[in-house]
Amino acid sequence: MSCPAPSKTHFAHPFDDDKLREECGVFGVVGVTDAANFVALGLHALQHRGQEAGGIVAHDAEYGFNSAHRFGYVRDNFTKSSLMETLPGDVAIGHVRYSTAGSKGAVIRDIQPFFGEFSMGGCAVAHNGNLTNADALRRELIERGAIFQSSSDSECIIHLMARSIQRKHADRIADALRRVEGAFSIVAMTRTKLIGVRDPLGVRPLVLGRIGEKGYVLSSETCALDIIGAEFVREIDPGEMVVIQDGKIDSSRPFGPSKGRFCIFEHVYFSRPDSAIGGRSIYETRHAIGVELAREAPVDADLVCPVPDSGTPAAIGFSQESGIPFALGITRNQYMGRTFIEPTEQIRNMGVRLKLNVNRSLIRGKRVILVDDSVVRGTTSRKIKDMILDAGAKEVHFRIASPPTAWPCFYGVDTPNRDKLLAAQMSEDEMRDWVGVDSLKFISLNGLYRAVGEADGRDNACPQYCDACFSGEYPIAPSDQIEKGFEMKAAE
Amino acid sequence: MSCPAPSKTHFAHPFDDDKLREECGVFGVVGVTDAANFVALGLHALQHRGQEAGGIVAHDAEYGFNSAHRFGYVRDNFTKSSLMETLPGDVAIGHVRYSTAGSKGAVIRDIQPFFGEFSMGGCAVAHNGNLTNADALRRELIERGAIFQSSSDSECIIHLMARSIQRKHADRIADALRRVEGAFSIVAMTRTKLIGVRDPLGVRPLVLGRIGEKGYVLSSETCALDIIGAEFVREIDPGEMVVIQDGKIDSSRPFGPSKGRFCIFEHVYFSRPDSAIGGRSIYETRHAIGVELAREAPVDADLVCPVPDSGTPAAIGFSQESGIPFALGITRNQYMGRTFIEPTEQIRNMGVRLKLNVNRSLIRGKRVILVDDSVVRGTTSRKIKDMILDAGAKEVHFRIASPPTAWPCFYGVDTPNRDKLLAAQMSEDEMRDWVGVDSLKFISLNGLYRAVGEADGRDNACPQYCDACFSGEYPIAPSDQIEKGFEMKAAE
Amino acid sequence: MSCPAPSKTHFAHPFDDDKLREECGVFGVVGVTDAANFVALGLHALQHRGQEAGGIVAHDAEYGFNSAHRFGYVRDNFTKSSLMETLPGDVAIGHVRYSTAGSKGAVIRDIQPFFGEFSMGGCAVAHNGNLTNADALRRELIERGAIFQSSSDSECIIHLMARSIQRKHADRIADALRRVEGAFSIVAMTRTKLIGVRDPLGVRPLVLGRIGEKGYVLSSETCALDIIGAEFVREIDPGEMVVIQDGKIDSSRPFGPSKGRFCIFEHVYFSRPDSAIGGRSIYETRHAIGVELAREAPVDADLVCPVPDSGTPAAIGFSQESGIPFALGITRNQYMGRTFIEPTEQIRNMGVRLKLNVNRSLIRGKRVILVDDSVVRGTTSRKIKDMILDAGAKEVHFRIASPPTAWPCFYGVDTPNRDKLLAAQMSEDEMRDWVGVDSLKFISLNGLYRAVGEADGRDNACPQYCDACFSGEYPIAPSDQIEKGFEMKAAE
Amino acid sequence: MSCPAPSKTHFAHPFDDDKLREECGVFGVVGVTDAANFVALGLHALQHRGQEAGGIVAHDAEYGFNSAHRFGYVRDNFTKSSLMETLPGDVAIGHVRYSTAGSKGAVIRDIQPFFGEFSMGGCAVAHNGNLTNADALRRELIERGAIFQSSSDSECIIHLMARSIQRKHADRIADALRRVEGAFSIVAMTRTKLIGVRDPLGVRPLVLGRIGEKGYVLSSETCALDIIGAEFVREIDPGEMVVIQDGKIDSSRPFGPSKGRFCIFEHVYFSRPDSAIGGRSIYETRHAIGVELAREAPVDADLVCPVPDSGTPAAIGFSQESGIPFALGITRNQYMGRTFIEPTEQIRNMGVRLKLNVNRSLIRGKRVILVDDSVVRGTTSRKIKDMILDAGAKEVHFRIASPPTAWPCFYGVDTPNRDKLLAAQMSEDEMRDWVGVDSLKFISLNGLYRAVGEADGRDNACPQYCDACFSGEYPIAPSDQIEKGFEMKAAE
Repeated sequence: MSCPAPSKTHFAHPFDDDKLREECGVFGVVGVTDAANFVALGLHALQHRGQEAGGIVAHDAEYGFNSAHRFGYVRDNFTKSSLMETLPGDVAIGHVRYSTAGSKGAVIRDIQPFFGEFSMGGCAVAHNGNLTNADALRRELIERGAIFQSSSDSECIIHLMARSIQRKHADRIADALRRVEGAFSIVAMTRTKLIGVRDPLGVRPLVLGRIGEKGYVLSSETCALDIIGAEFVREIDPGEMVVIQDGKIDSSRPFGPSKGRFCIFEHVYFSRPDSAIGGRSIYETRHAIGVELAREAPVDADLVCPVPDSGTPAAIGFSQESGIPFALGITRNQYMGRTFIEPTEQIRNMGVRLKLNVNRSLIRGKRVILVDDSVVRGTTSRKIKDMILDAGAKEVHFRIASPPTAWPCFYGVDTPNRDKLLAAQMSEDEMRDWVGVDSLKFISLNGLYRAVGEADGRDNACPQYCDACFSGEYPIAPSDQIEKGFEMKAAE
Repeated sequence: MSCPAPSKTHFAHPFDDDKLREECGVFGVVGVTDAANFVALGLHALQHRGQEAGGIVAHDAEYGFNSAHRFGYVRDNFTKSSLMETLPGDVAIGHVRYSTAGSKGAVIRDIQPFFGEFSMGGCAVAHNGNLTNADALRRELIERGAIFQSSSDSECIIHLMARSIQRKHADRIADALRRVEGAFSIVAMTRTKLIGVRDPLGVRPLVLGRIGEKGYVLSSETCALDIIGAEFVREIDPGEMVVIQDGKIDSSRPFGPSKGRFCIFEHVYFSRPDSAIGGRSIYETRHAIGVELAREAPVDADLVCPVPDSGTPAAIGFSQESGIPFALGITRNQYMGRTFIEPTEQIRNMGVRLKLNVNRSLIRGKRVILVDDSVVRGTTSRKIKDMILDAGAKEVHFRIASPPTAWPCFYGVDTPNRDKLLAAQMSEDEMRDWVGVDSLKFISLNGLYRAVGEADGRDNACPQYCDACFSGEYPIAPSDQIEKGFEMKAAE
Repeated sequence: MSCPAPSKTHFAHPFDDDKLREECGVFGVVGVTDAANFVALGLHALQHRGQEAGGIVAHDAEYGFNSAHRFGYVRDNFTKSSLMETLPGDVAIGHVRYSTAGSKGAVIRDIQPFFGEFSMGGCAVAHNGNLTNADALRRELIERGAIFQSSSDSECIIHLMARSIQRKHADRIADALRRVEGAFSIVAMTRTKLIGVRDPLGVRPLVLGRIGEKGYVLSSETCALDIIGAEFVREIDPGEMVVIQDGKIDSSRPFGPSKGRFCIFEHVYFSRPDSAIGGRSIYETRHAIGVELAREAPVDADLVCPVPDSGTPAAIGFSQESGIPFALGITRNQYMGRTFIEPTEQIRNMGVRLKLNVNRSLIRGKRVILVDDSVVRGTTSRKIKDMILDAGAKEVHFRIASPPTAWPCFYGVDTPNRDKLLAAQMSEDEMRDWVGVDSLKFISLNGLYRAVGEADGRDNACPQYCDACFSGEYPIAPSDQIEKGFEMKAAE
Repeated sequence: MSCPAPSKTHFAHPFDDDKLREECGVFGVVGVTDAANFVALGLHALQHRGQEAGGIVAHDAEYGFNSAHRFGYVRDNFTKSSLMETLPGDVAIGHVRYSTAGSKGAVIRDIQPFFGEFSMGGCAVAHNGNLTNADALRRELIERGAIFQSSSDSECIIHLMARSIQRKHADRIADALRRVEGAFSIVAMTRTKLIGVRDPLGVRPLVLGRIGEKGYVLSSETCALDIIGAEFVREIDPGEMVVIQDGKIDSSRPFGPSKGRFCIFEHVYFSRPDSAIGGRSIYETRHAIGVELAREAPVDADLVCPVPDSGTPAAIGFSQESGIPFALGITRNQYMGRTFIEPTEQIRNMGVRLKLNVNRSLIRGKRVILVDDSVVRGTTSRKIKDMILDAGAKEVHFRIASPPTAWPCFYGVDTPNRDKLLAAQMSEDEMRDWVGVDSLKFISLNGLYRAVGEADGRDNACPQYCDACFSGEYPIAPSDQIEKGFEMKAAE
């Protein structure tokens, strides 16, 4: 069901609209008492991947499957003993989710994990990613008698499972996933098993950890292993399925052999800096991006200031490479949430000033380099520039820790339409003028590849990462979007 | 999904456990602006049929289908303009629901109407009644790939519809209902149609009303027509389906010819006294029951007092027939709700005294006849007797406006297991002694039939009503229950 | 502090505006464990005297004084163990309150009991009634350095106590009350004492009960003794103060000798029918009013119907005296609360139909006598008449169980301004025509006095009751009001 | 009134207990339309000074004084148009408040501003600081008839005003403040005036700003001027009172001449880094502290990491002075609030891990310098050390950006009792061993003075700042505390 025009009583301030947004985080654990408590902690650590809502399903031998789905932060819902007591058992999975602002109303039925009762027992599924053929699948499934309960693409998976003739849950999951296209990291559970799958390209992350005697954990990021004291074991491979039961892990490759193309933007912005990928922390990678950026686009200045908070590691790297002092020239108000309910007109008009304030005494008279992670619409960059100039800065130079974001992502990231992406409309120089700064430079795509550890840069013949948002080269055809009229980049 | 033991933080006081409970009310309207507002008012008038939760689905040409499902009273949810604005359109249906206390946790997915997206467009269904073969159907549907979202039997209907090969919604509904057994009064809607169906026996009520130029209404009871100013047209016949569109009514008989057996307990207790059935108000029928009871079971006394509030019409009838003065000897606290959240120990122990108080000055030294509608477990009768004697009554005589309730209902009424029904365990005399009163008499089954207008009483060969709760004669075999071990009354 | 225009988001429906409203109920207990639990139950029984808010103060030897003040029903707040655990101790008092609609915003600081910390220890005071010189007292007290925290007149009492030079709390209360004019029934508490006082005329009620070994209770009405199983001892006399400690009662007369003039409207409407005054239940008195009314204003008709719920006892009396059958022709929706939050336009316009419904089948073609307790603005009477005629009644006759309400009350009852009182503007015949009924008759003042037990009717030289709302004879000069321009009835 | 033991349903995690806490922030504005909106924004910027509750009072010529007091963050309450519409007018003040954990229950009556109705009109007062003779004053005022409504010391001020015989509000405020001892920065308002006062020593901050044509602002810090676009004018002087009306400022010195002793801890921790004092930003001062610390206590290591977030500026300074690379080795979870409601056992036991996570890949094998702002109980330092070592650090060195906190503050800061202060019990070496790190060094008191701009360090004869928490030299005798047995430092 769709919904009337979005209510005037909620207001997500513009600052939050000017970022790409990871749409989900997933977490699951098996083989521990009160598994749902661990899931709650894991989801709290993954909250940056989805701030709108969260859900947990748990299974207990006596009480069966139980679930709770809630809007709001994990910490406000899944820390309460009165709720957690309703989620007993030693296997549980959970999901946090970001809603796509404005496009539709938020309804509780859209919150994952989804659950299906099958003849061989119940199964819950949590999905991080996006299916690029979900519209077509949904039409087909409805034709065949499926009743959809949500507007979520991910619900297709459970309906495809229900129509599989396999006898085991894991085989049904594999059957279902062979029908879908797109990006997915799946965490699923049955009464006794924890199951993890990554799509053949491994676009979205998924890691395996161990906890206690015989417990295992699946998580979007390693930072969520840390919070529960789990030990990192390894990343799930692109195209791999793991089925964990009684302390044993069964690994298979349901999609045949494949070479991964991990999302490079996870390095730039989505993942938490204290998570590690490939043995190196995201913080270090971002620091390396800053170093690379200082080499590619040096500028003489007095201070290097991060745009809080995600620009900080790159700013430190830029400062250390350039020798220009690092300083916190912009302070972030730590009491900001994401939305306002029924806000006054004045609040609506405040925009970024509710969240950021310039350290005027520090900035006055200085030549300032601002390091930000990305430019999406560019509106925030303009406002920050205004604030910095208003504080008396002599020069303002933007350095961006990612290449120009010129193409939308269809693999589980909330991006504006292409015509809203500043870099799709303008050259770097035009952007500089539009933002109104003394200089504006993005890291090159090759520079970014070097920073993430590819010493020779991007292999254009066979790129090591998914970088469609920068390059327009989509490793999986976005078929639903193409049907709706999206124009791919012309072959060169 | 099932749930752990019911939370200690909620407490439905025992007084409420000692009644049979209608489980639902349904209401729908087509052909009026802001149809959902009318549905809200109708549901408010039907709140006695289901106090736990309510839901409304509406369709608007521009905004499509929208829905809201809420726990709590209609008046606390569906009167707010901020909610009602999200339910635009000129066709809408709604449902109120009573939860079966203690047996399972209340989850929002169980709240009706249910909605299904079909290839020919969406359809919402609200169901009053109970399907006696729902367990078997559910197993079969799951085997065939259905994903159930609720624990409600009624969800089978939407899945059966999804598997029908008919091209019209109404035909799919008929297909689906031909597969189910049990009692049902259905109100359904598509983008432009309002649809009503009653099962072949017409166990649960459903009436048709007209509003405005070309609007039509379907409702469980006539009292809900009154509140919106709709005019009563007629009752939907047992086994009839009506499809209403553009001010025209199309009637059909999808189940072949049938003779109705309306639930006689609707007369005794479920329906509101100001609703009319067969041209006579429920109030008048209950009054007639009291008259009949005074003839069948006279007793010399000083006062006739109703057990509030449902015993009042019968008590007036008893008083007028017997000449013994009618008086309000027991006062009901009008600020009682149904449940307490996290109550103190003292509240838990208060029981009926929270709700009822005896008028001590009035009762002292008097011989009192108490008229109640029914005896279920009998625990409340004992407590009321204690209160009356404690206030100094000289004699206490119970007169019950229904025959002994000795059998559970499987057609949409919440009844305890048979071993909890006092009348299944004891004779009338044993009940009198167990309750501890000077006399205790039930109206006879024939007397009840006479009171509802059957001058010759019950036609035992072919009973005019469903009276299974009194007679043990189930007009529809409760097949799920029999499979679970329920023993039907032995043939005589 | 005052407040901007009342918010459009709340809506008390007009039906509730057309009644006089008792403004408060008080309750206190000493000498029992967990005294606050008893107070909560007592206030629940007194909820009809004040539905907007409630407060409880309790004292415990270890934890000292604690309090809770809440908007909403007692049952929604003071039944929760998490709240009640914060109110330990063996002495406690409480208050329920009705807000004067529209005139000012409701603020939590206005909820009683009020508390003052004095040099000899804390004291909490709950007040039922109204002080007629509160404005003047407040000005004087502010001049002398008092900081008022509420807009409540009752707060004057605590400030007057603070300025007394007496050493004992009870003496300070007496000092304070000798300065005030108006009507008051006070329940107060110190660390160990429960204190009760009635004004010299005893306008508002206050009764004493006993509970357990050495516990005592003070309550506005006897029905609140019943709910906690307390035994009625006696009424507190007009002008009496009782100080209860360690199971002993010390009685005194701080205002000198006086003859009481109890509010006669408590009999007509305010008190609960199961409360007793002077050994007779209110129900019986109202029944007697109906009998008297049938004698004074007989009319030939088919049915006597009460206007729910308060007209019921008088309607029964009218029926039994006249021989015309009693019937419930109007059904009250038991799921109505008092206010709506942010209601839709349609809800705003529904008025009385949200709450009452006519039993159409019963009423059609009948000559109907409607018995109501009072006529204030008359607007509801008109709407009920419309509903009855719309249902097809042949004749409608109103019989009112009180004399015409022509004067506002200044002693603790919420009455509209005089120009809003129908009886202040019109004769009985004019009212009949304005309401639009076949006849409309009020009981005479003498008839009312006879019904409450004064065989010779009203003693006009020295009236036995306060009947200012009918007679315009105010036993206590409303000095604040006179200063604001209120014109008393001219001496005859 | 006091309260029973703090509820088990709330839980402020231990990490938050291990900091000193500023107890309040104040803000006021006059001469702008919808002044309360500006106050709300100002309080949002000052939220770090008091996170528990906030209040606003506004005055409008038509609607008079209105107020709102709420628990929770400013952004969750005072951004809603439905609330802000109830606070019209062109003068308003507000207050945010931190509650003293555990010692008493939070009650809404304790939330400031306090309001008094005086014969010359109402006055609202908001107080940042603490009165050291409040207990004695309260006893005296109660003896003289004052009724206290809160447990707040600040309420004394309004009662002292009520007893003043002055004709003007400002004179009454001066009268009242001459009676109090302790630290205070006051923002007050009448119908037309905004009033600001600082105690003779100017312990707590207060600054003046200008907005629009003729508007003026008073605020605890300059960062709150920035958010509303106000221009900084100057700091209010120690011992100065300003009365602002119609765009004119009247300055006076009600306490005679005095030399200020501003709280040095505002530099170290309380104030926001983007606020400026004496023309230099707090950020720069903290950076200078880090520089000083690197000189005083150098150590060979691989990384300098801040303990988030308050240690960051000093860590940057330390890194830049020492040449050891700065890195974010510890990540703070940005979705943490301060308290949990009814948390699970597991949440209770998580402690600091809910909030902080170590970047394991970065830290492994490194010698790490951790820079924190202060050590209070030391418990958090131990837990952070455990986390760092668990991540594989080779060495851990703590550097603390303030001297040892060995004495409680009585001037408006929430400090534990002296016996809970680690530095009151142990030497620096003992602390190092107790925390379990390779080295632990505090900046010297002279070093701190140099960093805040006193080139010659502390003037021991006449210290430039209040540093009682470090030195035990209390510039204002804490008389209430001494009466309760607090032992001052022996004179040397």
